[in-house]
This record gives sequence, structure tokens and C-alpha cells, in this order.
Amino acid sequence: MARWEPNARERLERAALALFTEHGFDATTVAEIADRAGLTKSTFFRHFTDKREVLFGGQDMLAQLFGDAIRSAPASATTAECLAAALEAAAVAFTPERHDLAPQRRAVIAANSELQERELLKRARLASAMAEALGARGADQATARLAAEVGVLAFSTAYARWAAPDNLLSFAEIAHAALHELQASAATLGVPES
Amino acid sequence: MARWEPNARERLERAALALFTEHGFDATTVAEIADRAGLTKSTFFRHFTDKREVLFGGQDMLAQLFGDAIRSAPASATTAECLAAALEAAAVAFTPERHDLAPQRRAVIAANSELQERELLKRARLASAMAEALGARGADQATARLAAEVGVLAFSTAYARWAAPDNLLSFAEIAHAALHELQASAATLGVPES
Repeated sequence: MARWEPNARERLERAALALFTEHGFDATTVAEIADRAGLTKSTFFRHFTDKREVLFGGQDMLAQLFGDAIRSAPASATTAECLAAALEAAAVAFTPERHDLAPQRRAVIAANSELQERELLKRARLASAMAEALGARGADQATARLAAEVGVLAFSTAYARWAAPDNLLSFAEIAHAALHELQASAATLGVPES
Repeated sequence: MARWEPNARERLERAALALFTEHGFDATTVAEIADRAGLTKSTFFRHFTDKREVLFGGQDMLAQLFGDAIRSAPASATTAECLAAALEAAAVAFTPERHDLAPQRRAVIAANSELQERELLKRARLASAMAEALGARGADQATARLAAEVGVLAFSTAYARWAAPDNLLSFAEIAHAALHELQASAATLGVPES
């Protein structure tokens, strides 16, 4: 499934996901991934530090996209509008061309407890990136952290829905809907009793 | 600092925290912890599976306390009232007698990136326990997950404030205040724009 792929990074990614799916993450070596992609190990290491980064290499880019979108939102934007901007910015990473990789990635992670931990840590890092950017706009700490958790929940809900094999909607549409659902939930939680 | 301590588990915990503080977590061995506590290695292993569990052994108890409190709240309780009940139930773990251990534990974790990851995973697990219990009461998934994140944020905010060396307030008081702050933040987030 390799030689006609447009670029080395994506070829390696597709080869790795196929092998992880066939033999499991732990049993797959970098040499096998490079071989399946028709590339060398040194090409692999020019793109990824290790095989785990094939699954989680997008984390830094996402954190950057989230942070940049929040920082560059208009000064008049509400916190909720900042979250919407962050999720919209993330949509560049979830294009129709990459849609077929998502269910594979999710299945590989679901099958491995260490990878599940890594996924939880990724979410925590994304939340920190959002909270920091919201704090820099002047949100108080409680609001920034809560809003960041809402943003990451919207993101992970949206990713799961977008990754469903039969999904045809765009990531941005799905993410907006997920954010609105969470805002409605926040409204029900948001009334202190006393 | 050991022999007059009331029980082996707490003696081991105090010895471990003292050694982690003095020499770092990685450089401390189980033999040294047992020795400092005036106990044997086999006594250590009757109480903890490894030295990391000295720092994180409370996680299962907390998850249980949170879950039980939410499940046993009156049927009429709102989601926010369930969170308040969960935080109140956790207060048994944060008594004045244990207050002096908290800043040490926090400092040890802050000094070690692997322990920081473990702490983030602990929070994720506590959120899952709350979300599951809220879901079992009939909360929809988005509300249950959001409420659980609010609960864990309130918990971790409260823990940090309670653990401050000069704090004299009870965990329950601090936790209620933290939850109210987050509910106020949720209210500001909770109004969809369109």
C-alpha cells in the first residue's frame, strides 16, 4: 500500500498503522514500518523519533493551532468564541483525505493500555495549551482551566464522531455541534444552589 | 522520625516522603524507606506494591469515595449537588493530621516529570469514576463528562489550596468554595451564541 503515496511521512504513517493493526503496536518494529513503506529506517527517523510518535506526533501541532487561534481571536471574543476558533483551527488536521486513518489509529490505541495513557496525557497537554492561551487573554484561572476542559472535551467528542467510518460531515461542523452541546451542559451546571 | 508513628503504613509513608524530598524519588530505594521507618522490606510490600504507590495509593480510595457519594445521593439531587457530595466524601482523606504530608508530596511530584504524568493520569481516572457514576444516574454523556471534569478541577484546586503550608481551613470548606467558583465560570461559558 505504499509506493504511490504522495510523501514519505504519510507513507510511513499508513505503513505503521497497517502493521500496528495487523500485529499489534508492541510487536511492530521501525524496520518493518520502513520496509512496508518502501523506505529506509533513516528516512523513518527523519520524520519520527520513534514508532509511538507516528500515533502522537500531531500533538504539538494541535497545541500550537489551539493556542494560536485563541491568542489571535478578536479582543471582543468571548471565552466560548475563543474555543470555537480553536476547534475550527484544528480542522486543518482532519481532512477527508486523512479520514480513513482515524478509525485505525483509534483501534490501535484502544488495544494498548500504555497508548491509552499516552492519549490521556495528550489531552491534558492540549488542555494546558488552551488554558494558557485563555489566561494570557485575561481569563481568570478557574474560567481558563474550565474552558480548556470544555474545549478538549469538545475536541475529543468531535474527533470520535468524525473518525466514525460512516461519517461524511466535516470536522468543523461536528466540532461546533459538540461545543454547543457542552455549552448547554455547562449552563445546567452553572447555577450554584446557595 | 519513625518509631512513635501510630501505624506501619503511615510510618512508611512519612519515611518515603522524607527520603524522596532529601534524595529525589528515583534515587530512593524501598530498602531505604523500610529502614528509615524501622520496618522490613516485606512489611513495605504488605502495604504498597512499589514506591510509586506511596504517592498514588490513595487514587483507588478516592475514585471509590467519589463514585459511592454520587451513586448514593438522593434521586432529587442535581448534578452539581452530586459533585458537592463527592467532594465532601473525599474530605475523610484530607484530615488535619495528614496536612503536613501534602506539601511534601506535591513537591516530590513537581520535581519529576514521570510522576507528573502519573498525577495527570490519576486525575483522568478520577474524572472517569465521576462520569461513570453520573451516567448511571441518568445524566447524558456530555453532561456527565463535563460535570466530572468540573468535579476533578474543583478537587485539584481544593487539594492545592488545602495543601498550602499556611492553610487552616478544612478540605470540605475549601472544596465547596472551589466548586462554586467553577460553577460561576460554567455559567459564563454556558450560553451558546447562536
